[in-house]
Amino acid sequence: MTRKPWQGRFEKSTSQILEKFSESISFDRELYPQDIRGSIAHAMMLGKTGIIPQADADLIVEGLEQILAELEAGGDPWDPALEDVHMNLEAILTARIGDAGGRLHTARSRNDQVVLDLKLYIRDASVRIRGCLVELLGTILERAEEQFGTLIPGYTHLQRAQPVLLSHHLLAWFEMLRRDHERFAAAWESLGQSPLGAGALAGTSLPIDREMTARELGFETVTRNSMDTVADRDFAAQFLFNAALAQVHLSRIAEEIILWSSSEFSFVILPDAFSTGSSMMPQKKNPDPAELIRGKAGRAIGNLTTLLVVLKGLPLTYNRDLQEDKEPVFDAAGTLVGSLEVMAGLMGGLIFDSGRLGKAAQDGLVTATDLADYLVRKGIPFREAHGITGNLVALCLERGCGLAELPLEQMRERCPHIEEDVYDFLRVDLSVQHRDVPGGTAPGRVQDAMEEARAWLEQVRSR
Amino acid sequence: MTRKPWQGRFEKSTSQILEKFSESISFDRELYPQDIRGSIAHAMMLGKTGIIPQADADLIVEGLEQILAELEAGGDPWDPALEDVHMNLEAILTARIGDAGGRLHTARSRNDQVVLDLKLYIRDASVRIRGCLVELLGTILERAEEQFGTLIPGYTHLQRAQPVLLSHHLLAWFEMLRRDHERFAAAWESLGQSPLGAGALAGTSLPIDREMTARELGFETVTRNSMDTVADRDFAAQFLFNAALAQVHLSRIAEEIILWSSSEFSFVILPDAFSTGSSMMPQKKNPDPAELIRGKAGRAIGNLTTLLVVLKGLPLTYNRDLQEDKEPVFDAAGTLVGSLEVMAGLMGGLIFDSGRLGKAAQDGLVTATDLADYLVRKGIPFREAHGITGNLVALCLERGCGLAELPLEQMRERCPHIEEDVYDFLRVDLSVQHRDVPGGTAPGRVQDAMEEARAWLEQVRSR
Amino acid sequence: MTRKPWQGRFEKSTSQILEKFSESISFDRELYPQDIRGSIAHAMMLGKTGIIPQADADLIVEGLEQILAELEAGGDPWDPALEDVHMNLEAILTARIGDAGGRLHTARSRNDQVVLDLKLYIRDASVRIRGCLVELLGTILERAEEQFGTLIPGYTHLQRAQPVLLSHHLLAWFEMLRRDHERFAAAWESLGQSPLGAGALAGTSLPIDREMTARELGFETVTRNSMDTVADRDFAAQFLFNAALAQVHLSRIAEEIILWSSSEFSFVILPDAFSTGSSMMPQKKNPDPAELIRGKAGRAIGNLTTLLVVLKGLPLTYNRDLQEDKEPVFDAAGTLVGSLEVMAGLMGGLIFDSGRLGKAAQDGLVTATDLADYLVRKGIPFREAHGITGNLVALCLERGCGLAELPLEQMRERCPHIEEDVYDFLRVDLSVQHRDVPGGTAPGRVQDAMEEARAWLEQVRSR
Amino acid sequence: MTRKPWQGRFEKSTSQILEKFSESISFDRELYPQDIRGSIAHAMMLGKTGIIPQADADLIVEGLEQILAELEAGGDPWDPALEDVHMNLEAILTARIGDAGGRLHTARSRNDQVVLDLKLYIRDASVRIRGCLVELLGTILERAEEQFGTLIPGYTHLQRAQPVLLSHHLLAWFEMLRRDHERFAAAWESLGQSPLGAGALAGTSLPIDREMTARELGFETVTRNSMDTVADRDFAAQFLFNAALAQVHLSRIAEEIILWSSSEFSFVILPDAFSTGSSMMPQKKNPDPAELIRGKAGRAIGNLTTLLVVLKGLPLTYNRDLQEDKEPVFDAAGTLVGSLEVMAGLMGGLIFDSGRLGKAAQDGLVTATDLADYLVRKGIPFREAHGITGNLVALCLERGCGLAELPLEQMRERCPHIEEDVYDFLRVDLSVQHRDVPGGTAPGRVQDAMEEARAWLEQVRSR
Repeated sequence: MTRKPWQGRFEKSTSQILEKFSESISFDRELYPQDIRGSIAHAMMLGKTGIIPQADADLIVEGLEQILAELEAGGDPWDPALEDVHMNLEAILTARIGDAGGRLHTARSRNDQVVLDLKLYIRDASVRIRGCLVELLGTILERAEEQFGTLIPGYTHLQRAQPVLLSHHLLAWFEMLRRDHERFAAAWESLGQSPLGAGALAGTSLPIDREMTARELGFETVTRNSMDTVADRDFAAQFLFNAALAQVHLSRIAEEIILWSSSEFSFVILPDAFSTGSSMMPQKKNPDPAELIRGKAGRAIGNLTTLLVVLKGLPLTYNRDLQEDKEPVFDAAGTLVGSLEVMAGLMGGLIFDSGRLGKAAQDGLVTATDLADYLVRKGIPFREAHGITGNLVALCLERGCGLAELPLEQMRERCPHIEEDVYDFLRVDLSVQHRDVPGGTAPGRVQDAMEEARAWLEQVRSR
Repeated sequence: MTRKPWQGRFEKSTSQILEKFSESISFDRELYPQDIRGSIAHAMMLGKTGIIPQADADLIVEGLEQILAELEAGGDPWDPALEDVHMNLEAILTARIGDAGGRLHTARSRNDQVVLDLKLYIRDASVRIRGCLVELLGTILERAEEQFGTLIPGYTHLQRAQPVLLSHHLLAWFEMLRRDHERFAAAWESLGQSPLGAGALAGTSLPIDREMTARELGFETVTRNSMDTVADRDFAAQFLFNAALAQVHLSRIAEEIILWSSSEFSFVILPDAFSTGSSMMPQKKNPDPAELIRGKAGRAIGNLTTLLVVLKGLPLTYNRDLQEDKEPVFDAAGTLVGSLEVMAGLMGGLIFDSGRLGKAAQDGLVTATDLADYLVRKGIPFREAHGITGNLVALCLERGCGLAELPLEQMRERCPHIEEDVYDFLRVDLSVQHRDVPGGTAPGRVQDAMEEARAWLEQVRSR
Repeated sequence: MTRKPWQGRFEKSTSQILEKFSESISFDRELYPQDIRGSIAHAMMLGKTGIIPQADADLIVEGLEQILAELEAGGDPWDPALEDVHMNLEAILTARIGDAGGRLHTARSRNDQVVLDLKLYIRDASVRIRGCLVELLGTILERAEEQFGTLIPGYTHLQRAQPVLLSHHLLAWFEMLRRDHERFAAAWESLGQSPLGAGALAGTSLPIDREMTARELGFETVTRNSMDTVADRDFAAQFLFNAALAQVHLSRIAEEIILWSSSEFSFVILPDAFSTGSSMMPQKKNPDPAELIRGKAGRAIGNLTTLLVVLKGLPLTYNRDLQEDKEPVFDAAGTLVGSLEVMAGLMGGLIFDSGRLGKAAQDGLVTATDLADYLVRKGIPFREAHGITGNLVALCLERGCGLAELPLEQMRERCPHIEEDVYDFLRVDLSVQHRDVPGGTAPGRVQDAMEEARAWLEQVRSR
Repeated sequence: MTRKPWQGRFEKSTSQILEKFSESISFDRELYPQDIRGSIAHAMMLGKTGIIPQADADLIVEGLEQILAELEAGGDPWDPALEDVHMNLEAILTARIGDAGGRLHTARSRNDQVVLDLKLYIRDASVRIRGCLVELLGTILERAEEQFGTLIPGYTHLQRAQPVLLSHHLLAWFEMLRRDHERFAAAWESLGQSPLGAGALAGTSLPIDREMTARELGFETVTRNSMDTVADRDFAAQFLFNAALAQVHLSRIAEEIILWSSSEFSFVILPDAFSTGSSMMPQKKNPDPAELIRGKAGRAIGNLTTLLVVLKGLPLTYNRDLQEDKEPVFDAAGTLVGSLEVMAGLMGGLIFDSGRLGKAAQDGLVTATDLADYLVRKGIPFREAHGITGNLVALCLERGCGLAELPLEQMRERCPHIEEDVYDFLRVDLSVQHRDVPGGTAPGRVQDAMEEARAWLEQVRSR
């Protein structure tokens, strides 16, 4: 049986049950690229500062680079008895380069090492997620540009409320996801401090160079307090929150796609490549990808909850409870990347039925607000205008007609201020044109918005 | 490329990205024993009712039994392109027994099938968990019996409040976990209705015998409404709640073990087999198992949250979001079983330092309540007795002595009702004896409680 | 300034900031009926056992009954400086009856008292909730009975899948909520043990009669371990889970009502009394009540999370963290009662558009499964039948017709086993009739289900 | 009965049950300062742009200012029948100034209005919270400065691991809470876009000036898409996350204070003004404030969960579910402000027992890591040094002595590289001095850290 590095004074070996329960190599192997990168930087620093012989440092770096290459090529060298990815990699290294391997863990503890690995992982994941967000944002913008001119009913309470441009609706999605991009970008700063050098909790008595490893690994600076460094998981909680909120946004978009692809709405046809059939009902084209994405908001919120509960009431500094930080992070990252990729594919392939959309937007009462605003323009206080409009809508319902079909006379009976020009306000296409305020759905405003979005996207891409 | 069973009318193949995103075989393979058991019962029924030829039914049953045996022996035949465990098993079967395999899915849908599998899985997991709970309860009871007589301070607000028997404290843990056992047992009823026969959502037009498959699989009856059957995941939510609450209980016990094994408390020494060392500080014996168990309350609560979020706002009947029900269930079951096993090992190996415990329980002011009760016995209203006691405690703090060390005279100065017999109420051992009410810590009561617990345990074990 | 009962030895008074932060009277006053009921039972027991003079016990009981009457008449006597409902009531009592009031808290602690109050509150709330559930279940059943015969499309993935009876759909809702009723009923048992007598944590040294107070208050028995008694909040967690799951069910029903009342579905018209208008769009009839109910699933899940987090990692026995148990319970109870009442009103007033419903159910491809089952009856293996059906559906899509409109010849080209009788399986009304299995949507089965539901409801009501 | 503004066409009045269920005035009245501020800015803009007569605008502004003054003086004019704070204020205004009041709601919808109010509320709350954080940070820093020189054991796994300066430990708390401050500050940007002008969902057809109201209200700019504006609650989710994480931090600090004030640790004595007594055990000084703060992490996480669940799967744009956004935000803000204030009071009053602390830090084996590092300095590879140290610790345990008490000879038997100078590394005070890396616990480094913290704090305060 493998002897554990910390078993110096222990007389009885660890229980098999416990070993299985406490191992983390089955999941933290996902950290190998970060762990190796961190160890290489650490070894270089140890050599440079003379804490270990330069020759040993070189051996370590070389050995680790080789191991990394093998792992990237698909190697699977993990030994569960060695508990975690850190111990495994050190053992593999030492088996290859001998005694020098035993110098790698000098002036370092698993406590600062594991924070380093997780921080690097989250940095890498964030870059990947931002890339996926940009892809999806790009697709949404293209669809908005391409669909410019198509009308769609705007809903409140899932009731048709006011007509809008489909592009305007798509840009609402754009804004939601742009905020996610900005949130992940803003979190970068909180990921900018290297934890290496905090040791077990108090720093180290060996003359390390924290700034050097920080620089080497792309950090802006080093953490300020060693105890906080090994106890802190804020950066992971922030990541999980950002992922959960992004996933909630995707669930909202998914809900709309599911609605739109129902027989009742029939606003879109799903692309074959992003829908599935049913084993019992071969005629159906099911929005499974959208449903899965919607459902995955559950696990994203669950992952966030998990870490916050773990942290609640935990005294300083490192406690083993913190091992529970990794799986939620891995799951959140993988889930979000997958959801974004699938949503981009789905988004790109949606076939809009502009005929159905336009017809739905023409619902005869959706310009009621325009009528109220028209009355305001005629000098009537809004609350009164509101009441008159309500009366005229009731008249329409009674007669089974739209507002634009009411004879002028009948309107004037209710309100003598109404004149012929009222009809300019009751037409759906003119209604859209009239919402001519920044952020409104008037075609010019939507055009402006698309241009701003395009410029922002270019700029983000070129960074 | 493998052709999907539902690809009848689809022209373009599913996107690779989507395939990876939507496959479930990587985790739902865990359901293979339940899926095969369910399919065997279903095939037997199809044969018996004449819906398929009996010879085909026999072939199916034989084929599935063989596949089951191979899987239990460690086989790994899964093909990700076949999406899920159901499709995989049907494909493996058909590859072996030919056309007859294509008859298995008659009068069944993945919608009722997947509910069946998950229900059977949760039934199996619940039996396993109850077994683990009984083991742990047995260990706790043994420790309580063995430690009978040892004193320990009882705490409120983590302040020493009143002395109790260590056995009494251990029995408090017993009660917490006994409730978990009862909760899992009570949930059995809600798991007693077979879903098979609900079809996709409306039942089937073929003359199946739902009661027969139900009986065959150990269910008491069949579900009452086909639409509800495929949409319902209450049984899974209930399981996740029960698991979360059990895990919260374990986190409370774990917290106490962590406290007790600190230098400051030093009430227990951890068994070597259930503690670990540190890579930087070889002198330490860390309560890692207890910390891990405490931390795992996070994921248990997270899993519960996940499923409730998935279900929120979901229209009937089956929606693909429901695929997200399985991973939380698997994780909760595995986590709880592991935590219970490790806790049982840890519990069994704790070495109580009865000297330290007794000394801590002797804290000179812990009998203040006894003094107040003494005064009540002398006819003084409780609130007044409370005030007098407070005064005497203040006197003790001033003089740096315990209550039992105050001279009678000085007490009588504050309250002339106090007599020589007061000292019988100020001794810690007598204090414990005086709490002689049902559920109290008096030795006789604790003895009764241990006997009741022993009897209950025997009865549960013999079921 | 009011002097706190526990301020015996304290030299400096409590900070004003802390006082505001830690008071609970602003919310725990909701417990006054339970607190008074518990105190009356306790005082009667103290008198009967001779622990306090019977005359004092009588004074206390009389005083408390008077206070209760005044509070029920709308009195508002609360003093924030007295922290909580227990202290307030004792102070009010003592102000009225003098010294005897100071005897009430004999042989009791706030620790067992507060558990008692919360348990009684949850018992009362559960009874109320079960009553509301029965009301709503009754309304649903009435609607199902009244709508018997109306068709509606059954959905999976929000796609029309198979026609069902509207009554069948409504009975699916019935089953969801019936489980809630059963869950609240089953939880009763876990609420059946009186905590009174556990004292601060160890029992009491005074000769109380726990069984007497238990009987008096309607409990079946007493708790088994005093330490567990004051530390346990499982009964509250169970209540919060039951409430959360019920609220999730309501959110699913609400989602369907929202969908059905959209222009696109137009399956129902909302009753005026249970919908609202918009301040800007007077033509709209918004499903606000359903939206609010759906949204309130959030707080229900939040309340459950809150308590589980509070309990995580808490050592025995009472810790002040537990004060955080009450607000989630009050909020969950009030929210659920309100939601059930509103849902019952809404449910009772829904106006189903049977014409639209029937037309939607006639969707020309919804009998595809029936066709597959027909082929199975002709001896074709299911997977092959599935493939043939897929082909014929593709043909329909190509020709823009329904399955029942395909000429027999064209079908026989694909599958020579098809005969004239196939058309009996392609008609929607016959499709529904064919699903003649227990729990299926065939009219006879639905009739049976309504009778079973009616009988169950009568029985529950008569309890 | 009050007629609702939107009741134009409704024939039957709203159900009483629904009215009670859907009203929000009982809690959203908390928004009155923000609602009035927003309405004033809106009215000024309406007047300036000529959409309403300037005289009416002036009347409105004047009226609202008067109402605000009255409300701040304690007025309670709310009418539940008017549903929410917006309707109430408009009705109060109109009752006073007549017809002009009916012009206030021109070119505005409750949908953009409610987003505005909540955003302004969160901005105000964030400023308040940052102020409280600065207060608490200031207190922590003062305590660190004042306690400079005191030793305390540093813990991992709640086991004494390495000695540190108490100031270093306090600065770890400082860092946790500084991150909260930075997080709230960073969120400011996401709160910088005025929603006013989005109307119900599509903008307005009246010629408003969005930038003017934005400027007036202190926003940097306006939102970019009207549909997103009324559907978005990210700013609230972000606030709830920031509050939850801060509350989790406080729970960790609270846990340590609870531990430290136990008899077993006895590191601190709680200030009388920030601790409480017990009704049954007058000798106790309970850390109730710390326990309450720890417990309130539950509701903070619950509040976050609530909103994320509400948002999950919600289609655009406004749905009434969003009414559920307010209570969690109010509760989170109030809870955090209260917790920070109480923690600041508690922190300021903690009496550290430097004697007990120093003695605990002197634990004879805490310099084991120093010994390992010493061996590394002598050229021994770390893993070997680790093993030797383990052996020597085992020897200490056998002999019942500390490392510094081992005779040189006995050490040299295990490792001949050990020399006389080893004792410089085994003394606790020197151990602390040796951790001389940035962020380490060496006195010089801690001094630097305190200076940096002081400078940062001054700078934040002077902003």
